[in-house]
Amino acid sequence: MSGSTFGKYFQITTWGESHGKALGVVVDGCPAGLVLSEADIQQHLNRRKPGQNRFSTPRKEDDSVEILSGIFEGKTTGTPISLIVFNKTQRSSDYSEIAGYYRPGHADYTFDAKYGFRDYRGGGRSSGRETIGRVAAGAIAIKLLESLGLSFTTYTRSIGPVVCPSDSFDRAQIEENPLHMPDAACAAKASEYLEQCKKSGDSAGGVIECIVEHMIPGLGDPVFEKLSANLAKAMFSIGAVKSFELGDGIAVSKAQGTTNNDAFGLDSCGNIIKKTNHSGGTLGGISDGSDLLLRVGIKPTPSIISTQDTVTRDGQEIQVRIKGRHDPVIVPRAIPVVESMAALTIVDALFANMHAKMSSLETFYKR
Amino acid sequence: MSGSTFGKYFQITTWGESHGKALGVVVDGCPAGLVLSEADIQQHLNRRKPGQNRFSTPRKEDDSVEILSGIFEGKTTGTPISLIVFNKTQRSSDYSEIAGYYRPGHADYTFDAKYGFRDYRGGGRSSGRETIGRVAAGAIAIKLLESLGLSFTTYTRSIGPVVCPSDSFDRAQIEENPLHMPDAACAAKASEYLEQCKKSGDSAGGVIECIVEHMIPGLGDPVFEKLSANLAKAMFSIGAVKSFELGDGIAVSKAQGTTNNDAFGLDSCGNIIKKTNHSGGTLGGISDGSDLLLRVGIKPTPSIISTQDTVTRDGQEIQVRIKGRHDPVIVPRAIPVVESMAALTIVDALFANMHAKMSSLETFYKR
Amino acid sequence: MSGSTFGKYFQITTWGESHGKALGVVVDGCPAGLVLSEADIQQHLNRRKPGQNRFSTPRKEDDSVEILSGIFEGKTTGTPISLIVFNKTQRSSDYSEIAGYYRPGHADYTFDAKYGFRDYRGGGRSSGRETIGRVAAGAIAIKLLESLGLSFTTYTRSIGPVVCPSDSFDRAQIEENPLHMPDAACAAKASEYLEQCKKSGDSAGGVIECIVEHMIPGLGDPVFEKLSANLAKAMFSIGAVKSFELGDGIAVSKAQGTTNNDAFGLDSCGNIIKKTNHSGGTLGGISDGSDLLLRVGIKPTPSIISTQDTVTRDGQEIQVRIKGRHDPVIVPRAIPVVESMAALTIVDALFANMHAKMSSLETFYKR
Amino acid sequence: MSGSTFGKYFQITTWGESHGKALGVVVDGCPAGLVLSEADIQQHLNRRKPGQNRFSTPRKEDDSVEILSGIFEGKTTGTPISLIVFNKTQRSSDYSEIAGYYRPGHADYTFDAKYGFRDYRGGGRSSGRETIGRVAAGAIAIKLLESLGLSFTTYTRSIGPVVCPSDSFDRAQIEENPLHMPDAACAAKASEYLEQCKKSGDSAGGVIECIVEHMIPGLGDPVFEKLSANLAKAMFSIGAVKSFELGDGIAVSKAQGTTNNDAFGLDSCGNIIKKTNHSGGTLGGISDGSDLLLRVGIKPTPSIISTQDTVTRDGQEIQVRIKGRHDPVIVPRAIPVVESMAALTIVDALFANMHAKMSSLETFYKR
Repeated sequence: MSGSTFGKYFQITTWGESHGKALGVVVDGCPAGLVLSEADIQQHLNRRKPGQNRFSTPRKEDDSVEILSGIFEGKTTGTPISLIVFNKTQRSSDYSEIAGYYRPGHADYTFDAKYGFRDYRGGGRSSGRETIGRVAAGAIAIKLLESLGLSFTTYTRSIGPVVCPSDSFDRAQIEENPLHMPDAACAAKASEYLEQCKKSGDSAGGVIECIVEHMIPGLGDPVFEKLSANLAKAMFSIGAVKSFELGDGIAVSKAQGTTNNDAFGLDSCGNIIKKTNHSGGTLGGISDGSDLLLRVGIKPTPSIISTQDTVTRDGQEIQVRIKGRHDPVIVPRAIPVVESMAALTIVDALFANMHAKMSSLETFYKR
Repeated sequence: MSGSTFGKYFQITTWGESHGKALGVVVDGCPAGLVLSEADIQQHLNRRKPGQNRFSTPRKEDDSVEILSGIFEGKTTGTPISLIVFNKTQRSSDYSEIAGYYRPGHADYTFDAKYGFRDYRGGGRSSGRETIGRVAAGAIAIKLLESLGLSFTTYTRSIGPVVCPSDSFDRAQIEENPLHMPDAACAAKASEYLEQCKKSGDSAGGVIECIVEHMIPGLGDPVFEKLSANLAKAMFSIGAVKSFELGDGIAVSKAQGTTNNDAFGLDSCGNIIKKTNHSGGTLGGISDGSDLLLRVGIKPTPSIISTQDTVTRDGQEIQVRIKGRHDPVIVPRAIPVVESMAALTIVDALFANMHAKMSSLETFYKR
Repeated sequence: MSGSTFGKYFQITTWGESHGKALGVVVDGCPAGLVLSEADIQQHLNRRKPGQNRFSTPRKEDDSVEILSGIFEGKTTGTPISLIVFNKTQRSSDYSEIAGYYRPGHADYTFDAKYGFRDYRGGGRSSGRETIGRVAAGAIAIKLLESLGLSFTTYTRSIGPVVCPSDSFDRAQIEENPLHMPDAACAAKASEYLEQCKKSGDSAGGVIECIVEHMIPGLGDPVFEKLSANLAKAMFSIGAVKSFELGDGIAVSKAQGTTNNDAFGLDSCGNIIKKTNHSGGTLGGISDGSDLLLRVGIKPTPSIISTQDTVTRDGQEIQVRIKGRHDPVIVPRAIPVVESMAALTIVDALFANMHAKMSSLETFYKR
Repeated sequence: MSGSTFGKYFQITTWGESHGKALGVVVDGCPAGLVLSEADIQQHLNRRKPGQNRFSTPRKEDDSVEILSGIFEGKTTGTPISLIVFNKTQRSSDYSEIAGYYRPGHADYTFDAKYGFRDYRGGGRSSGRETIGRVAAGAIAIKLLESLGLSFTTYTRSIGPVVCPSDSFDRAQIEENPLHMPDAACAAKASEYLEQCKKSGDSAGGVIECIVEHMIPGLGDPVFEKLSANLAKAMFSIGAVKSFELGDGIAVSKAQGTTNNDAFGLDSCGNIIKKTNHSGGTLGGISDGSDLLLRVGIKPTPSIISTQDTVTRDGQEIQVRIKGRHDPVIVPRAIPVVESMAALTIVDALFANMHAKMSSLETFYKR
């Protein structure tokens, strides 16, 4: 098992290595009749494309997606959608040196421990390029959910110590600055911080937030298949994620019941709503109709040019300086990955919920 | 789907409601030949038993487990192990009032949204009593892992604002104080804080940490089935969990690569080790041989006696005071649940890893 | 893995051994709102009860089922339904002898090969009593499907060489004779044949047919999850089954396209129908709206009192005469098992089909 | 769900339509370290290539496989192996006519019933070309199993009424005649029969047998995941299969226990063996060390040029003559598909069996 399949009903299988011929994904379980073109997918892939700002790797890539199956006359047919992105440049020469030792903070050592050897070129399967398949599949999930009225907003909450104040949220700013922060001043400060990291051969982490509006209540199951639990898995399946929070998250451990409980009330149409949303959109693991609000903490890029201690494959202690041009931060490029994984998780819960009630079955299959 | 099955290879299915006849779990996939008795399981169930300290609910329970299948002559046979705990007291009268409205912070509203109605007695399936099945199954997973040399330590890191200092860790203290904190002075302070909560009709959250020592490297798969991702799901499947961290967790978002990367070195026997463990025991989602270190944030108990705003099932705004004796904190009782879910996740990864290499297959099946 | 879970959406997990304390099943994924009582389940368990006719084992059993969870105020709640049947008599003394050798035709040898040892009492987990869980769960699936208009007819087509002529089908006869054949004369002949088997210390096999009427078209997926493929697995998961056929089955290998193809036409209401049903109700693995027609071949009961060659666990060749009172045929008792497995398979396909089309999702989730 | 994934541990996902850009498969879970080249896979694809004999479709195809991922320096890396075969010729013009009506014996009607519309070009996803992915993946499974000592022999047992006598089995003949029968005279007769079918615009079915020698005992689980049950599903997932038998198969229903039971004995080395193999290699669903022997019945090709009754998509009764050059039989081409599905099923059981015993775990993970 390399565990490259995600989802139970809307099921995606990603494949490909950083320096292989191609990378891709097979999406199985997409309903028939969704209008879908390569452009729908390409726009999301472009969001994760490097070279969008000066803090992302200057390596020239051109990840253009091709649909190989599952579409007929512009619509999904219900059969597997195979998506492929060919690797344009496969220079392996840069990587010959790292074949012999374990880069700190990377999966080199654990791959050898598990499989006995590894494709060391560009991180192989553990490269960030693996997320191409996730984002391509996520684009379909997002389109499907948007057609049902849901909407996604994902942005950078913090870079290193520079945190956007929670009372300053300018949605329009998110696409205006290359760090995708909802606050221009904060983005400027973060930008300066990254400049310093770069100069000192260091890297930075950060926090991404994702908000899903117009959620449908009732999604997720009450025990192990909680919507929240599957979101946690989805987020922690992204390489550099080290923390996951829902709603108030880590802060609730210090809160009290009287303030943390979200009171119920009625909106102007008489619909039941929560007056606050400390819970982040689920109760008992099931969506409660409020916005879904999640947050992931991302570690600093492990690829740094500073000297580091490590060992060789044959057990010698050495010091290394890893060459190459590295992103000092991956947070902005991880935004579409976070959004994709959220969408994939929600679609799965959406399908599972359709047979929760006998009355639904009776309506659906009445003859 | 109510999603009551966890695990792919070592698979558990829990069942039962707070006020039903019984609760239980079926454990399918336990290898044959593990010595197992009811006492092995009961000792872990006792850890989650209420009434162990004055901050847990005084409701008298006696959760004694019975093994119904899967054991022959004191050993597991490889077939499903069915475990049952009968509910001794099933008084439903206390709950008639809450049938008509939605308790804030509980799953009442979302159950109705999903299923159309709910078993409102004691929270039904969303009761903390559902975790009986998890802990009973977890006891088997823990015993299996301990027989292979792994060991588990799980304790309370904080209660409300009272946080144990990270430089004070007295392992012996954990079982000495009813809050299971590794620092006596801190436990005393937390105890005072809870006393205040109780007086003011309020409740508290907290943080639980779990350390797994003597880990086997190579567990977990590199993409969606990362050990870390499955731990995240496992933890977020526990009712009141709102955050999950691995290793340095949320702090890494503010760290830099030079300090966050764990350098590799050699121990005195010449084995490869990480010199630090910021990563919390995984790299690329695969166990790296260091201790696994995880942390969950738990929300304040939603059951409080203070007056709260809510709505009735038929859409009237009301104010409620929920009667009954409630825990001001569930953190200490959730400790064995966290430990169980960690063990169940690791066992699954342990099995999956056995066919990662052709050389393993050749050794195993050589004739 | 002992592989005791069946189904992906409507998921059952059976547990228990022939001579354990109890046997049972957990049904997870039943929609909320199905009216369900113990009597609904008991009536199906009674169909598999021994002692109904003189060819089934005279061992007195009283398999009464108890519902332990998942029902509230007479209706399913959407949470797991745990069903239990306690073993009334657990005499193990009869079985001490067979502990030491491998009974021909039984799973004794393969259990030892797989697990290293076995619960030898009454066949342990490989006993026919394992099917109690299947029939109890199947009763729920059947009730659910009947509420949507489907209906099941399952009967004995042949016993040993005595085959009911295909042009003689008297539905009322099925419950009239203890062998459940749709032809009284044939049943009488089969009865005579079994009498001879019994006298000569031998046993007989037979064929069971199951017809599902008023099928919904569109169930099953086109590749690996064909309805037909899942029915094949379901049937072959029953202990003594050695062949499975759909529609004309084995006969199609000798047929020609001109006669085997089912022409399409219109019924009196103008609905599209197949004019014949050689296919047995699926095309390309998906239900076509015709009756589902399947057939399983069951081997002669391996427990016979005649002398047989075998070996002991420690590798000695011996001759054995297996004591005890054995059914000369299990076919009539397997009927409700076949019907249950068919129903469980169909329910699963029914749920999966609900998200096959975008238009279904739009109708379901429109706001 | 289109259910395009097979296997739980060694998991394959096929994709692609008859007239799309390409077809392929992703193989996830292959152990690291298997030597694998495109030639290993191509040789099996060539077995299913049309044009090998005059009874298969003369349409010129050139299915050459490309490995896109998962191999490094000639060996599998443990990560997903993506295999692709581009469709050389995608002429859709031939198929415009059949877009409007339902071909008898094909999946046209059921696809429309399920998905609302269909890719009608060449059968779309239900085309025999879907099996390209199965055979490509199967080639890997076969190579893996052969490296552990197992061997596969698959051949045509019968074509229409022409059945090879069971006492005439000339293994060398199988690759000598284009129908792959183990008896030259029989092959000649079958060839004549097909000539007649062709002349009369008709088609024929047949029976394929697969023998797996040097099986490992203990594979398969005792309840729902029986090796036999998964083989049944695997075989019935192949388009035209209408019957599945294991060992004596359908004949056991007429047999008696005294002759059907396989006695145990010792071979010349003192190993336990079955003296006969009526069971076909499993007992209680678990492999017993004897050869696995299975048999599938295949229906006559539904594509025939004779006039047939059918209906149009808009509900008009019509008569059709389906143009094009059709195979009068698909049996010989289905042989590698049957073999592939058998191998994929066995590999999965092989992996699952590795954690059946505590003693295996202890040996594997001892430190």
